Amino acid sequence: MALANEHFMKLPDNYLFTDIAKKVNTFKVVHPKAEIIRLGIGDVTRPLPKASLEAMHKAVDEMGEASTFRGYGPEHGYDFLINAIIKNDYEPRGVKLDPDEVFISDGSKSDTGNIGDILRHDNSIGVTDPIYPVYIDSNVMCGRAGVLEDGKWSNVTYLPTNMENNFVPQIPNHRVDIIYLCYPNNPTGTVLSAEELKKWVNYAIKNDAIIMYDAAYEAYIQNPDIPHSIYEIRGAKKVAIEFRSFSKTAGFTGVRCGYTVVPKELTASTLSGERIPLNRLWNRRQCTKFNGTSYITQRGAEAIYTPEGKSQVRETINYYMTNAKIMKEGLTSLGYQVFGGENAPYLWVKTPNGTTSWKFFEQMLYEANVVGTPGVGFGPSGEGYIRLTAFGERENCEEAMRRFRKL
Amino acid sequence: MALANEHFMKLPDNYLFTDIAKKVNTFKVVHPKAEIIRLGIGDVTRPLPKASLEAMHKAVDEMGEASTFRGYGPEHGYDFLINAIIKNDYEPRGVKLDPDEVFISDGSKSDTGNIGDILRHDNSIGVTDPIYPVYIDSNVMCGRAGVLEDGKWSNVTYLPTNMENNFVPQIPNHRVDIIYLCYPNNPTGTVLSAEELKKWVNYAIKNDAIIMYDAAYEAYIQNPDIPHSIYEIRGAKKVAIEFRSFSKTAGFTGVRCGYTVVPKELTASTLSGERIPLNRLWNRRQCTKFNGTSYITQRGAEAIYTPEGKSQVRETINYYMTNAKIMKEGLTSLGYQVFGGENAPYLWVKTPNGTTSWKFFEQMLYEANVVGTPGVGFGPSGEGYIRLTAFGERENCEEAMRRFRKL
Repeated sequence: MALANEHFMKLPDNYLFTDIAKKVNTFKVVHPKAEIIRLGIGDVTRPLPKASLEAMHKAVDEMGEASTFRGYGPEHGYDFLINAIIKNDYEPRGVKLDPDEVFISDGSKSDTGNIGDILRHDNSIGVTDPIYPVYIDSNVMCGRAGVLEDGKWSNVTYLPTNMENNFVPQIPNHRVDIIYLCYPNNPTGTVLSAEELKKWVNYAIKNDAIIMYDAAYEAYIQNPDIPHSIYEIRGAKKVAIEFRSFSKTAGFTGVRCGYTVVPKELTASTLSGERIPLNRLWNRRQCTKFNGTSYITQRGAEAIYTPEGKSQVRETINYYMTNAKIMKEGLTSLGYQVFGGENAPYLWVKTPNGTTSWKFFEQMLYEANVVGTPGVGFGPSGEGYIRLTAFGERENCEEAMRRFRKL
Repeated sequence: MALANEHFMKLPDNYLFTDIAKKVNTFKVVHPKAEIIRLGIGDVTRPLPKASLEAMHKAVDEMGEASTFRGYGPEHGYDFLINAIIKNDYEPRGVKLDPDEVFISDGSKSDTGNIGDILRHDNSIGVTDPIYPVYIDSNVMCGRAGVLEDGKWSNVTYLPTNMENNFVPQIPNHRVDIIYLCYPNNPTGTVLSAEELKKWVNYAIKNDAIIMYDAAYEAYIQNPDIPHSIYEIRGAKKVAIEFRSFSKTAGFTGVRCGYTVVPKELTASTLSGERIPLNRLWNRRQCTKFNGTSYITQRGAEAIYTPEGKSQVRETINYYMTNAKIMKEGLTSLGYQVFGGENAPYLWVKTPNGTTSWKFFEQMLYEANVVGTPGVGFGPSGEGYIRLTAFGERENCEEAMRRFRKL
């Protein structure tokens, strides 16, 4: 008989954002007239850059004429986009990449979820805690995370980031095979200095580990000393895969485009000690189980690298970062301890008086009609925090601050 | 140390269409003036339906205004598209589906490749032979296919379809857990009658097996007695997952959209005998490792179900099927044995005088400057056949037939 993948059954049935939606709906039933401000889910609200819209209109037109029609594209993406990425996202930061080291995809969630396909299921993993849930859930699904014991997965090393360590994860005192790092961080909105990132690269080199580096929020970095790419650190190409996304950079959450860099010098081992280039494995994986990203989407993404596109992207990011500033200043002036929000669109707020994340979530909802995300939903070390996002409308951010004053 | 997934190393390095491209390039170097006609890769050439173009332009405009902007969509797709699919693709054929049984994706290649995530890696598989390579390769990657011995995978049951059995795969005399069926068939272009399909559904019910039914070419069926969906067969919802694509139906190979139906009554077993609904597992898989299909793309797909869209799709399919007719009649009149091409855009041509697939491929290339696909590239039972596609320009199909006369 056909057998199901039982690892799926280990996953808790509840999903953070579904739980939140349920609680918000319950509130709405009882308070139908309340005007709720949503600062919970990390989705953008500003329209796409005009340059992308124009490029996509043009691409749609091309698909309407036999002479310019495009069928199957390359699984790893069109050269025009790959070259624009290398030239604009990497060369100015001193990072050299070959076109076949960049893989265009339909987004970082797919790639961070699917990357595990190319690695053995018994590698151990390490994650900063709190964390974007996909990293762990995708590893649970293939058995790599082990079993859930007291809220933690047995084959996962948790690396707490919190007030006490200034949100700098400490190098573990044992070896792990695969380490997930996300900087600027979701959910805490904090960043890692070049010096701290270097410790991780060196750890990976020394321990023959692989770093999965999620840089989906790099466009929000304001401090010129903070690295945008892990490849700015010497030796990182030997040990790191980097994930990038157009979702938050250019508002592509509903358009779907991202890319993953798998350097050719990066290898993993076979049981017998042979070194295998992971670039080749990821290419084979994508050629077999993926058929490329929409041509129209790729033209839209390319356009953000034009002078107009760059300026439009900057304007949108400034809008969100001004939201973050308003909220951070507002909350700080009210006596809250607020982290992040300076190089990332997320604010990580300490709940007052040791309140739990969920309790403060409900207090915000019922007393201020503002929705945040309970920090504990991102992992045990998130307990006692609330995540607020800066992706809302300006007036909602301002109104939310007025309401916090009454809390 | 981080260990690579060694199953990838079992995959032969050569890939059918890469090998073909190399051979064609070699020919071009020596014969730079030859005008090559490509009837090899199954990619479409006609522009998108006008209805889809208009819908996509409108959707791009919506993404340019804050009031109509769409961010993250539902992972399983928008209701507007799911409802259009159920109403147009299933209801008229007597198949009732709930909206949460239909999962929109970026294409059938992703879904047929990823579906294995939700099943144990030690299920046995059965495939018709010849076959679309993704079914096997994706199973090799997770170890489910076993090891390659004399050109066959040890954990795969091959079900030959050839002239001798009139391209009707025979029910195996032992049980397999997962069976891949693709009808209308790629590469042979043949179809399965309701009576034959029923045998497979009954086999799956009796053996507690799961059928992966790839119906990517159903829009090409001309004979009203041939089932378009496996769910037209009683009991199929208990045992079958169906894959559909807009690639060949509406020219979406470069736009990327398809869908997968996982009925709620379909279950697989745990080792302890508990029944698990696969709909829940696939939903969890998609919510974790996929983030929805482009809103713009989904609007484009929805538009093919409007009266204008339907008529434009029909026109394009008629164009390709007229190509198929011209080629089938042309080759038959020259004495070739030609299969398929009546309910599918593929012609499966027996090579003359027992020539091998690759030898005839080269003869076609060098003597007629026409590129086909060697049948053996799709599996051992494809030896002695060539696949030709009807997706080319009309004049190229006609010219190809003139050149065949000289062969």
